[in-house]
Amino acid sequence: MLLLRNIAQIVTLRGGPIPRVGASMSDLGIIENGAVLIRGDRIVWVGPTKDLPVREPGIRYQTLDGMGLDLVALPGFVDSHTHPVFAGTRVEEYDLNVQGRKYEEGGIAASVRQLRAATVNQLIEKAERYFRHFLSHGTTTIEAKSGYGLSLEDELKSLQVLAALRGRNRLEIIPTFMGAHAVPEERAGSRADYIREIIEEMIPRVAQEGLASFCDVSCERGYFTVEESRAILTAAKQAGLGIRIHTDEFSRSGGARLAAELGASSADHLQCIDDSDIEALKRSGTVATLLPGTAFNLGMMRYPPARKLIAAEVPVALATDFNPGTCFTLNMQLILAIACTQMRMSPAEAITAATINSAYSLGLSDRLGTLEEGKQADIVLMDVSDYRELPYFFGTNHCVVTIKKGNVVINRLEQPWKE
Amino acid sequence: MLLLRNIAQIVTLRGGPIPRVGASMSDLGIIENGAVLIRGDRIVWVGPTKDLPVREPGIRYQTLDGMGLDLVALPGFVDSHTHPVFAGTRVEEYDLNVQGRKYEEGGIAASVRQLRAATVNQLIEKAERYFRHFLSHGTTTIEAKSGYGLSLEDELKSLQVLAALRGRNRLEIIPTFMGAHAVPEERAGSRADYIREIIEEMIPRVAQEGLASFCDVSCERGYFTVEESRAILTAAKQAGLGIRIHTDEFSRSGGARLAAELGASSADHLQCIDDSDIEALKRSGTVATLLPGTAFNLGMMRYPPARKLIAAEVPVALATDFNPGTCFTLNMQLILAIACTQMRMSPAEAITAATINSAYSLGLSDRLGTLEEGKQADIVLMDVSDYRELPYFFGTNHCVVTIKKGNVVINRLEQPWKE
Repeated sequence: MLLLRNIAQIVTLRGGPIPRVGASMSDLGIIENGAVLIRGDRIVWVGPTKDLPVREPGIRYQTLDGMGLDLVALPGFVDSHTHPVFAGTRVEEYDLNVQGRKYEEGGIAASVRQLRAATVNQLIEKAERYFRHFLSHGTTTIEAKSGYGLSLEDELKSLQVLAALRGRNRLEIIPTFMGAHAVPEERAGSRADYIREIIEEMIPRVAQEGLASFCDVSCERGYFTVEESRAILTAAKQAGLGIRIHTDEFSRSGGARLAAELGASSADHLQCIDDSDIEALKRSGTVATLLPGTAFNLGMMRYPPARKLIAAEVPVALATDFNPGTCFTLNMQLILAIACTQMRMSPAEAITAATINSAYSLGLSDRLGTLEEGKQADIVLMDVSDYRELPYFFGTNHCVVTIKKGNVVINRLEQPWKE
Repeated sequence: MLLLRNIAQIVTLRGGPIPRVGASMSDLGIIENGAVLIRGDRIVWVGPTKDLPVREPGIRYQTLDGMGLDLVALPGFVDSHTHPVFAGTRVEEYDLNVQGRKYEEGGIAASVRQLRAATVNQLIEKAERYFRHFLSHGTTTIEAKSGYGLSLEDELKSLQVLAALRGRNRLEIIPTFMGAHAVPEERAGSRADYIREIIEEMIPRVAQEGLASFCDVSCERGYFTVEESRAILTAAKQAGLGIRIHTDEFSRSGGARLAAELGASSADHLQCIDDSDIEALKRSGTVATLLPGTAFNLGMMRYPPARKLIAAEVPVALATDFNPGTCFTLNMQLILAIACTQMRMSPAEAITAATINSAYSLGLSDRLGTLEEGKQADIVLMDVSDYRELPYFFGTNHCVVTIKKGNVVINRLEQPWKE
């Protein structure tokens, strides 16, 4: 058994995704001076330390006592939008971009060239470095997209990298096929043909080999139209994949509306949606996954309308968008800070969005995203005395312990755990 | 002797503060695959590893070989604007602020109440925790202001805390007296009297006891007027203190112009300055110290005009503004990222601003801020292969080694240093 006791605050988020009847995104279900008991990969008890059940005789307890330390426990972050399979950085492009060159000029094509030239093993090695960073910053589950392959062979290669990493790494990976990230350069003259290939070859193959849980599309000016996106996502749905969409980031392209129409699990970015789009998302129950790190990193000075979405009771999630082109960060704690200061989410709303609601967008809220009896033991300990310090004291990694499926995978605390 | 060799890039910044004849803020003086040799607290040689001088016989060398690692060396950051002496956080205020309550309503008064109730030892203990964070994030020197005391006794207490910390801590501290941070609540009805007390009692006492190198004033609507600021800073100058100013943050209050008039070392914040203010700063040679972390944290969507300042050849510095009210970060690497993405500084310009130019604003550019023969050995090693990755791969602490005055004070590298 693993026992955490005398933890200043336990952010349980009990009750599941929000909005739900009688709950707002500010309801964190906090237990002051709390304890958590873990057996195997499951949480078996959560409550005030003083109410801890009597120890079972003959069973070994590995105990962390937070007495005298500033520690807050919360569910491991679920980062529900990342692009972690790539072969190289794009730091030259960043340098140019901040000096005024537009993102739309270049970008994905550069990563496609790099990825196609790389072997599976090279890609695994690169991704693993970042996967350790995710864990050490408190993220225990990521959604991970392909989309720098843009050919049957290279998309399969990307998804195979993710499959290999699932077996080698503590970080939990939910794979998404994104052959429709962009039309590859060499198919610019035959885009209808590329889309046909996605629908008739890639999606069936990915689904058949069980390489992805979701399919995602860039429905954005210069990428895929609403009609093209509808065709691709409809095929994905028929093949048994869940569906997600990148949309309305640089202009109102109509993808949020399409996500609602198709009952997508998530519509992502959303800087440019209007009130009617918000109404549509609310009716469909589609999660609005906001990526404020990208808006920040691109210097857009325009962020998604988080307050309107929350007011309309659309379920809001937060994610990093970790990728080598537009947002090279994997620190969800910083995403909380950006969400609070730039989108005026409260710290409580931001934490809800980054845990249970992002788990919900992946269909995993029964197992992940809260600290409750029966849930998977994905728990992070932060070196703060109040959960609000996570966005307040920004730019620092507060994560000192990461527990994944009941295993202590990161431990930066000085004192040892006791038997 | 301490020897760093096979470092992918050494950012030397040789030549001193910028602008200077023939140099732009983009001139980092980079040495690829470089080496640095340190004797005592001084750099004695910098150059390409292949040109390293022959080892002196009979002398012990402690060596770090960066072969096969991604390491960039740069001068330790000089954070030229911080408020690190305070007794408690203000996380409740943050929570309210992000939900729309204005900063101007509250703020400094809360920190004043807390500080006055705290003992010197309590304040030392609190500050030391943060000082370790500064060092571990690559900052080797800070300018540190009083200004939460706002009475003779409590301002002296704050400066005595800094004096005590100078002896106990590896972080170098340049103290600034800031009795004119705000008019304290209890003196609201007698502000002229408070200003008289600053001028006639506090400044002489601070100068006489050698407790501060600089005097700073908040010249901002609701704080001190241009006339009041002029009187205070003139008295400080006559007492032998250097002068700095907080100004033009929320409205164009005229303090940048005043800084130029008085030949201040630095004018800080500057969101609201106009072209004529920039012209005045250029003529006086006053450093424009930009604090984009504060603009970010307050969600202002308005940043200082960094590009115009650079174009006008005003020396630009960057700092955190670390304080418990408006900017609770001490990570200069994140400040680089905010400067690049929100103010369109290039990575090279941002690094210049955060090292040699901030040292220059403190009058320390002869000793700090570059990696050159004869300079103090304040060196940080970052786990990146290209200096531009510091802002590009944001939200992560890349600092793996911090050397202060020739001492290795932080070492997160796995392999040991060799004799």
